[in-house]
Amino acid sequence: MAHPTRIVILGGGFAGVYAAKHLLRRGGGRVQVHLVNRENYLVFQPMLPEVISGSVGIADTTTPIRRLIPHAHLHMRDVEGVNLAERHVICSPGFQPRPLILPYDHLVIALGNVTDFRGLPGLAEHAMPFKTHGDALALRNHVIRVLEEADAEERDDLRSRLLTFVVAGGGFSGVEVVAELHDFVRRALRSYPSITRAMCRFVLLHSRERILPEVDAKLALYAQDLLRRRGIEIMLGARLSTATAQHAALADGTKIACATLVATVPSHPNPLCEALDLPKDRGRIIVDEHLRVQGHVNVWALGDCALVPLAGAGGESAYAPPTAQHAIREARTAAINILAAGQKSPLEPFTFKGLGSLCALGHRRGVAQVMGVRLAGFPAWFLWRTVYWSKLPGIQSKVRVGLSWLLDLFLPPDIVQLRVGRSSGINHEHFEPGQAVFEQGDLGDRVYIIIRGRAEVERRDEQSGEVQSLAVLEAGHYFGEMALLNRAPRNATVRCVEAMDVLSIEKGEFGSLIAHLDVMRQQFEQTADARRAPAAAAIPAPAVPKT
Amino acid sequence: MAHPTRIVILGGGFAGVYAAKHLLRRGGGRVQVHLVNRENYLVFQPMLPEVISGSVGIADTTTPIRRLIPHAHLHMRDVEGVNLAERHVICSPGFQPRPLILPYDHLVIALGNVTDFRGLPGLAEHAMPFKTHGDALALRNHVIRVLEEADAEERDDLRSRLLTFVVAGGGFSGVEVVAELHDFVRRALRSYPSITRAMCRFVLLHSRERILPEVDAKLALYAQDLLRRRGIEIMLGARLSTATAQHAALADGTKIACATLVATVPSHPNPLCEALDLPKDRGRIIVDEHLRVQGHVNVWALGDCALVPLAGAGGESAYAPPTAQHAIREARTAAINILAAGQKSPLEPFTFKGLGSLCALGHRRGVAQVMGVRLAGFPAWFLWRTVYWSKLPGIQSKVRVGLSWLLDLFLPPDIVQLRVGRSSGINHEHFEPGQAVFEQGDLGDRVYIIIRGRAEVERRDEQSGEVQSLAVLEAGHYFGEMALLNRAPRNATVRCVEAMDVLSIEKGEFGSLIAHLDVMRQQFEQTADARRAPAAAAIPAPAVPKT
Repeated sequence: MAHPTRIVILGGGFAGVYAAKHLLRRGGGRVQVHLVNRENYLVFQPMLPEVISGSVGIADTTTPIRRLIPHAHLHMRDVEGVNLAERHVICSPGFQPRPLILPYDHLVIALGNVTDFRGLPGLAEHAMPFKTHGDALALRNHVIRVLEEADAEERDDLRSRLLTFVVAGGGFSGVEVVAELHDFVRRALRSYPSITRAMCRFVLLHSRERILPEVDAKLALYAQDLLRRRGIEIMLGARLSTATAQHAALADGTKIACATLVATVPSHPNPLCEALDLPKDRGRIIVDEHLRVQGHVNVWALGDCALVPLAGAGGESAYAPPTAQHAIREARTAAINILAAGQKSPLEPFTFKGLGSLCALGHRRGVAQVMGVRLAGFPAWFLWRTVYWSKLPGIQSKVRVGLSWLLDLFLPPDIVQLRVGRSSGINHEHFEPGQAVFEQGDLGDRVYIIIRGRAEVERRDEQSGEVQSLAVLEAGHYFGEMALLNRAPRNATVRCVEAMDVLSIEKGEFGSLIAHLDVMRQQFEQTADARRAPAAAAIPAPAVPKT
Repeated sequence: MAHPTRIVILGGGFAGVYAAKHLLRRGGGRVQVHLVNRENYLVFQPMLPEVISGSVGIADTTTPIRRLIPHAHLHMRDVEGVNLAERHVICSPGFQPRPLILPYDHLVIALGNVTDFRGLPGLAEHAMPFKTHGDALALRNHVIRVLEEADAEERDDLRSRLLTFVVAGGGFSGVEVVAELHDFVRRALRSYPSITRAMCRFVLLHSRERILPEVDAKLALYAQDLLRRRGIEIMLGARLSTATAQHAALADGTKIACATLVATVPSHPNPLCEALDLPKDRGRIIVDEHLRVQGHVNVWALGDCALVPLAGAGGESAYAPPTAQHAIREARTAAINILAAGQKSPLEPFTFKGLGSLCALGHRRGVAQVMGVRLAGFPAWFLWRTVYWSKLPGIQSKVRVGLSWLLDLFLPPDIVQLRVGRSSGINHEHFEPGQAVFEQGDLGDRVYIIIRGRAEVERRDEQSGEVQSLAVLEAGHYFGEMALLNRAPRNATVRCVEAMDVLSIEKGEFGSLIAHLDVMRQQFEQTADARRAPAAAAIPAPAVPKT
C-alpha cells in the first residue's frame, strides 16, 4: 500500500503520547499519527502535588506534546464522538464553528479517567478534584484566597472554618496532597501574621482501616504515624457523603466545617468511553492481552480507561493497575501490535509486572516499595526525587524542576494568586437543611433558581426582633432577584429546609440576561413587584409554573 | 492621641504599595495602614511584555504585597464605593456575603488607570487589553491557541487570518508587546512544522506620524527601522475604529483580517474615580503640589489616576506623566505629607523631574534616553535589563528573573497553554454588516440575543443551491437555539445586516438555564416549534416583544 496507515489516538496522557512516540519511531514513514487532546501539554502527574506548594514552578510539570512527538499531528480539541462503523472521530470546533472529522485506519483510545462525583450530593459543586494541572492551580489559588480571607476574619467560627483543609482519599494522591497542603500553609503563615499554626486544621479522610493501600501495612503505618505527628488528623473508616460550601459530611453523620475540600476519589473512566459501543467492565474498555478491543480488529485501548489483563498473572492482580509505569509499557506494546497487525505478523502480549511504588510525604520524607525492598523516611524521599526527576520527559523540564528544587531550599514559598480569565458566572450549588443561602442584611450578589429541594423565606422585624416565615420555595422557584434589581441588601433570610440543589447566577451575568432577554426581565420584574407589595409579606412568593 | 492614625490606601500598584511602605517606615506605631487591592501581588509592569514570550517565568514579574509591606493590613477585595462624608470605604464581600467597611482618618487613592474601549464598537468584545498580569497570560494563551489552530488549518484565508497579529498603540507598551509577540511566534514555529515564517504577519498601528512619543525623533526612527527590518509592518496615522472576531477596522475603512488584536490604548482613569465626588480633569483627580485633593484635608491621590502638578515646571510638562518612576516618588511625598498633616507640620511639594525612558525592542536591542544621553541597540537593551532588574522588588524576584533570563539563552520557548478555571459562558460579541454569525451546516455551540443592530436569516436549498431569505432579526430577538435544542447542525445562515452587538450564551450554560428556568424554556421551545413548522420558512421568526 502506498498511502501511510492513519492512526488516531484519543488522549494526551502517558498512554497516548508514548503510543504515538513508539508508533512514529518504529513505523517511520509507514504511519501517520493524529493525537487529539484538550491541552497541548502532557502533565507529569507524579509531581502535580508539588504545584500546590510551589516547590516546583507552575509550568514545570508540563511538557509540550509537540516537543515530545514532533512528527505527530496534534489536534487541541475535545472529542465529541467516534463513528466506529465509518471509522472516523468527530472533534469539537476550533475558531470556526465546524467539526473536525478525523478518519482512521486504527483507533487508539487512551482517554484516562476522570473524577466522578455522581451520587454524592454537593461534591460536584463544592469539592475540588485533583487530576489535572488546572485542578492543581485552582487548588493553589483557592488556598491562597482562604489564607487572605482568614487573615482578616474576626469571627472565630468563620476563621476556623476557613482554616480547615479536608482531603478525601488516603491513596497516594490524597496523602501527597494533604502533605503538600500542610507544608505550604505552614510555610506561608509567615506572611499572615494574624493566623497561628494552632488555628489550622488538616484532615485526611480514608474509608478503610489504613491509608496507602498501594504499599504494605508496615510502610502505611509509618506514613500514618509521621503525618499524625505533624498534626494532620487521619480519620479512618470515614466515608465522605455530602458537601456544601460550608462543610463536608461523612456517612456516619459527622460534619466538618471547612472551606477547602479536596476529593481524590472516586475515579471513573472518561464519560466519552461510556458513549462508545464497545465491551466494558465497570466503565473500563475490555481488551485482550494484545490491548486490542474485543470484537474490533482496528480499535485499541490502553491506560486508565482500559481493563488490561496481565498475561500469565492470576488472582487479584489479574489486571494492570492504573499507574503511569503501566501506561508507558502498554503504549509500547500497543504500538508494536498495531504495526504488526498491519503486516499480519504475530502480536505481542502485555506482561509488565510493575516496578514498585513511591509516595512522598513532604518534609523530605517518603515511603517506597521497590522490587521487594521497603524504604521509609529520607532514603525513600530521595529515591522518589531521583526516580521521578529522571523520568521527567525532556531536558527542559529536568533543568527547570532541578532549579526549582534548588531555589525552594532557600526562598520562601510564593503566595501570588494568579488570575487567568474570570470564572463562570453560572454555578451549581448544594445546600443541606438548616443552612442559610443568605441572610437578611447581606449584600446581594447572586440570583438562585431551585433545581431540587425546598427553602424557607424568613424576615426578622428590625424593631421587635421577631422572625416571621414568609414563604416556602421549591423546585422551579427562584429567589434573590430583589436585592439585585433594587441594588439593596437582602430583605429576608432564605434557609434550606430540604436538601437543595440550586443554579446560581452572578449579578453581572444576571444583569446581562435580564437587560436583553425581555421574557426573563418581565418575569423577574413581575415577581419582584409582587414580592415588594406591602401585603405580600404573608403571601407565598409567586411561583414560576413547573410544567 | 492614643489611637493610631488609620490610613486606607486604594490600589496595590507602585503608588499604593510604596505609599504604604513609606508610611509604615516613617510613621512607626503611629499609623495603621490598610491597603485594598483585587490581587495579593504587585505586578512589575516594565517586564509584563516578557511574560508573553516566557523569557521571564509566569509568576516572576509578580511580588506578594504581604512580603513588601508585612505590617500593613491587606484586603484582597474590590472597592465598591467610598463615603467621603462618613469617612469609610466599602469593599466587596469575600466568602461571606457581607460588605467590608473600612473607616479611615486619611484616604489615599492610587487606583491607576484601566483600558477603556468605550465609543469603539467591538473593541471591548474582541480586542485584548494589556494592563494586568492576567491580560499578559491571556494573550500568551491566546497566541498559543492560534498557533495550534493554524497548524491544522487547511484553508489559506483562514490560516492567514489566524497568523495575523495586530497591536494598536505605538507607545512603549505597544512597541514592546509587538516585539515580544514577534520573537515568541518566530521561536515557537519550530514546534509547528506546517507554519512558515512567511505566513505570519505582525502589524503595529499608531495614530501619529512616528512611534514612541516618549523619546526623541532620532531614537523613534531607529526603533521604527529596526522593527520594519524584522518584518513588522508599522502603519502610521492609523486609528483603530471597530473590531469583530474576524478583523480589525481602521478609521479610514481599511480592514485587517486577524485573530489577535491587542489594544494598548486608550487608558482611562479607574471608573471608580469617576463615581467619586472629587474635582477631576478628564477623569484624573486634581491634587495640589502636596498630592492632597482640592477641598479635602484628608484625601490624597497619586499615580496614574491623579493629575499631579510638577512644582516649578511650566509649559507642556506641567503635570507628572503616568510612569512607575513618578508613582514611586509621589508615594514618598504623599507619605511624608500625610504624616506631616497629622502633626500640623509644613508639607513638602512634589518636584521629581524624571530620570528618562527605556524601551526594549526584543532580540537584545532597545532605545534609551536617560538624563540627556541617548542610547540605541545593544547598550540600551543592556541598560534596560540592568535598571529594571535592580528595580525588581524583593530578592526572590531578582533571583527568579535572573535564572529565567539565563535559561532563556539556551532553552526553547515554552508553548504550554495553561488553563486556570474555565472561561465565562456568557459573552458579548460584535458583528459588522456582511459578516456571518454562523453558517448553515455549522455545529451549534451558542445561542445569540441581539442587543443592537439587525441580522438576516438565509437558507440555502441543498438541491438547487438557491438562497432564500427567511427573516430579519433585530434587537430583543434571539437565534441559534434550534441547533442546540435539537442537537443538529445549523439549518440556516445568520448574517449581520446592520452593525450588531449580541449576547451569546455557550451551550452548557444555555442548557442549565433552559433546564431549570421554566419561563425561559417555554419561550425558547415555543419559538423553536414555530420555526420548525414547515410553513415557517417564509414567516418572520417570532419576536420576543420588546417593551
